Amino acid sequence: MTVVTLLTDFGVKDPFVGMMKGVILSLAPNARLVDLTHEVPPQSILTGAFHLKVSYPFFPAHTIHVAVVDPGVGTERRAIAVQSGEFIFLAPDNGLLSYVLEREPEVQCYTLDRSQFHLPRVGRTFHGRDVFAPIAGHLAAGRSLDQIGTPIDSMTALDLPRPVPTESGWIAHILCADHFGNLITDLDFDLSHPVSLRCHGEVIPLGLAYQDVPVGHPIALYGSAGHLEIAVNGGSAKDRFGATVGEEICVVRK
Amino acid sequence: MTVVTLLTDFGVKDPFVGMMKGVILSLAPNARLVDLTHEVPPQSILTGAFHLKVSYPFFPAHTIHVAVVDPGVGTERRAIAVQSGEFIFLAPDNGLLSYVLEREPEVQCYTLDRSQFHLPRVGRTFHGRDVFAPIAGHLAAGRSLDQIGTPIDSMTALDLPRPVPTESGWIAHILCADHFGNLITDLDFDLSHPVSLRCHGEVIPLGLAYQDVPVGHPIALYGSAGHLEIAVNGGSAKDRFGATVGEEICVVRK
Amino acid sequence: MTVVTLLTDFGVKDPFVGMMKGVILSLAPNARLVDLTHEVPPQSILTGAFHLKVSYPFFPAHTIHVAVVDPGVGTERRAIAVQSGEFIFLAPDNGLLSYVLEREPEVQCYTLDRSQFHLPRVGRTFHGRDVFAPIAGHLAAGRSLDQIGTPIDSMTALDLPRPVPTESGWIAHILCADHFGNLITDLDFDLSHPVSLRCHGEVIPLGLAYQDVPVGHPIALYGSAGHLEIAVNGGSAKDRFGATVGEEICVVRK
Repeated sequence: MTVVTLLTDFGVKDPFVGMMKGVILSLAPNARLVDLTHEVPPQSILTGAFHLKVSYPFFPAHTIHVAVVDPGVGTERRAIAVQSGEFIFLAPDNGLLSYVLEREPEVQCYTLDRSQFHLPRVGRTFHGRDVFAPIAGHLAAGRSLDQIGTPIDSMTALDLPRPVPTESGWIAHILCADHFGNLITDLDFDLSHPVSLRCHGEVIPLGLAYQDVPVGHPIALYGSAGHLEIAVNGGSAKDRFGATVGEEICVVRK
Repeated sequence: MTVVTLLTDFGVKDPFVGMMKGVILSLAPNARLVDLTHEVPPQSILTGAFHLKVSYPFFPAHTIHVAVVDPGVGTERRAIAVQSGEFIFLAPDNGLLSYVLEREPEVQCYTLDRSQFHLPRVGRTFHGRDVFAPIAGHLAAGRSLDQIGTPIDSMTALDLPRPVPTESGWIAHILCADHFGNLITDLDFDLSHPVSLRCHGEVIPLGLAYQDVPVGHPIALYGSAGHLEIAVNGGSAKDRFGATVGEEICVVRK
Repeated sequence: MTVVTLLTDFGVKDPFVGMMKGVILSLAPNARLVDLTHEVPPQSILTGAFHLKVSYPFFPAHTIHVAVVDPGVGTERRAIAVQSGEFIFLAPDNGLLSYVLEREPEVQCYTLDRSQFHLPRVGRTFHGRDVFAPIAGHLAAGRSLDQIGTPIDSMTALDLPRPVPTESGWIAHILCADHFGNLITDLDFDLSHPVSLRCHGEVIPLGLAYQDVPVGHPIALYGSAGHLEIAVNGGSAKDRFGATVGEEICVVRK
C-alpha cells in the first residue's frame, strides 16, 4: 500500500488533479493518495521546490512524491525520476527537485522516456495526467525505475536563493508567504549570535513562539520548516509589511 | 474496493463534502474517495457537466461518480442514477449528466426513490449528504441499482452549446476558463482545414503546445480535454481578453 | 481501518495538512484520512467549533476527529483528547470542542503530555504536525488514550452565542456564512409559533426549501445543520444583506 503524494500548480477548481488520481488508481488500486498542495502559484518552480523540501521527509519510506509545476510542458524538457534512499521523486526536469537534491546524499536519476508506461495518447499540455500519473501508478504497483526509465547523469538545477553574509550579519530573502501571512526567508541555519531583523525600516525582535510578543506586534522566529520567518502575532506580516517574494531582509548582529 | 468520485459546487470552506464522505464510509468502509472538484461555480450545471465529461473516463471500471450541482434541491426534481458499461453516475435530474449521456452508448436509468436507502431524516437543503451519499455508500458496499432505484425512461437534458458552421468556418463558444486562465471552447472535433481564431478583434494562431509562441503571446490549441482553447504562454487568456463564459469565438479557415 | 478527520485553519496553499497526513500514515498506514475543512478563518475558534459540531456525527464509530485552530500554539495551553461513546476528539484546549462537549453526554478527558508519543522534535509553531498528528497516528494504530495521555477534570470552554428570548420572540445571532452566502444563526431549536425574521429592516418569511420563494428573494429556513438560516434563492444572502458574523437577527412571532 504505497503512498503517492501530489504537488502541483493545477489549483482545485478544475478536475485536473482528480484525473491524475483516476489514472494512478487504475494502475495501482491500493495506492494511498495524499495532496501536498495544488496552489503553488502558476508556474512558480521555486515555490513548488520549497514546499516539496519541507514536506517530503514526513512521509513513510517508499513514498512516491509526484511534483508537477511545468511551464515547459509539451517542449523537449525531460520528465525525470529520482530515487533516494527512502523515496522516489517524479517531476519535470526544470529544477523542481533542486532542494531535494541538496538534501539527499545519494540518488539515482532517470529520464522517463519509455512510452509504454505513459498513457496511450500523450498530449502536449497535460503531462501530469499523461506521463507522471501513469508512471506513479506503475511504480506504486511494484515496477522499478530500472524498468520504467533510463539512467541519466545530470539534471537541471535552479539557482536557489541564499542568505548573503555582510559586515553586520546577513542579507536574507523572502521565499514565500504562507496562508497566515508569515514571510518565510531563505535563512535556514542556526545563527551564532543574537540578532534582530529589519524589514521596511522596522526592527523586529527574534523570539521562539508567535505569542512572545503582544497581539499585533511583529516577531521573527524559526518556523516549522526550520527557516527564519517574520510573523505578526494574531495578524499577517504579509499585509503589515507589504513585502514581496524575493525582497531582502537585513539580519543584524546585536 | 470501489472508487467513488465527488464533484459538487459546495466549495471547501464548509464541511459539506466531509459530511458526505463520513456517510459513504459509514456504509462502505473500503470505498476509495476521490475529489474531482468542489469549486464548480454555484449552481452552474453546465460547468459541472463539462468537468464530469472530461474526467470520468480516466477512472477504473466500476467507479461510482457522484455529481451534485443542485439548484432545485428540496423541490420535486428527481435524484437519478445512470449505469453505463463501466461506470455508475449519481446526480440530480437537471441535466448534469448531459455530456455523459452523449458519450455513453448504452445506459440504464433509475430514479432513486426508495427512502430506505437514504438517511433516516432527509432534509430539503442537502441531498448530497442525505440522499446521494448514502446511495453511493450502498452501491460501493455491493448493492445493485435494481435494488436501490426504479427504472425510468427519460431524463432532463441541457441544451448544450455547440459550434455553429458559418461561410468562413465556425462560431465556437467559451465554455469555461480554467485555473490558468485558458479559455476552453465547445469546439471538440478535428478541423479539416488550417484555421485561425479571432477573439476581441485579435487574430490568434493555432499551435500544438503553449510554448509554440513567445511568452506573453496568445495561442489556440487543443487542450487536454480535446477542446479547442485559447491560452497565453506564461499568462492568462482570461485576463488578457476579458472574455466571459458564453462569448463567441470566430474560427476562420485560412 | 480507522477514519481520521482533519479540521484546521491551515488553508490549502501550503503543505501543512499534507505533512500532518504523512506523519499519521507513517504510524498508521491503514488510517483513512478525510478533510472536514482547512478554510476555517485564521484563528476563529468559534467557526471551527461549529463546523466540527455539524459534521462529526456523520462518521463511523471509532473515528478520530483532529481539530487544530490554535492561536496559542507554543504557549502553555494544553493539547487535549476527549473520548465520547463513539468518537475520539483531539484539539488544543481553547474551546474548540465546546459544542462537542454540549452534545456528548459522557466523556473522558485527557491532556496529551507524554512526549514519547509526539514527534522527536516538537517546535513551538506547528503542533498540528508535531503533536496532534503523531497522537492521531498512535491512536489509529491501536493505542488507547490511557496509554497516550493523562486524565484531566476540566477544560477551557467558549462562551457560545445563544438566542435571547424577547417579548415578541427571539434575538438570534449570525454564526457564519457558508459557501453559498447563506447566513447561519445560533437558533437551533424548534419554534413553537409561526415566525418571520427581520434582517436589516427587511421582513423574511420562514419556509422549507430554497425554492419556496422566487429566484432572488430571501427566505429563512432550517438548514442542513438544524440551525435557522437566511438564504436567497439562487443568490447570496451574505451579499444581499451585507450582514456579518455576530450580527443580531430578530425572530418575531406572528
